[in-house]
Amino acid sequence: MSGFARARVEKLIREAGAFRVSAGAIDRLNEVLTDYGANLAKYSVEIARHNKRKTVKESDVKLAATK
Amino acid sequence: MSGFARARVEKLIREAGAFRVSAGAIDRLNEVLTDYGANLAKYSVEIARHNKRKTVKESDVKLAATK
Repeated sequence: MSGFARARVEKLIREAGAFRVSAGAIDRLNEVLTDYGANLAKYSVEIARHNKRKTVKESDVKLAATK
Repeated sequence: MSGFARARVEKLIREAGAFRVSAGAIDRLNEVLTDYGANLAKYSVEIARHNKRKTVKESDVKLAATK
């Protein structure tokens, strides 16, 4: 999994008030977010299938995120 | 919060096996991931401060993600 743009992930940590951010911290947060996103995506697809739909809709992601 | 690249978020849902993905599903997943990332980042910064460090390290993010 390639993950998100490093600059965007770094910005999240800087906006949270960080004075300095290590490269490892950025990579780790990127990994955590990518894994979480992949899991939510999988669950969203399962929910759409369960509803016999081929299209993943916003409400599927919304429901998946409440898990 | 501007969020992550839409194409990357869409890819996560496609890689999860989606046949079609609505625009709303992409935006919602982006929002959920951005919020989650901002929360993890805030907690990581708090953990670094608690350790009297100015640099947010990988171990801070790792600990934050276990919350």
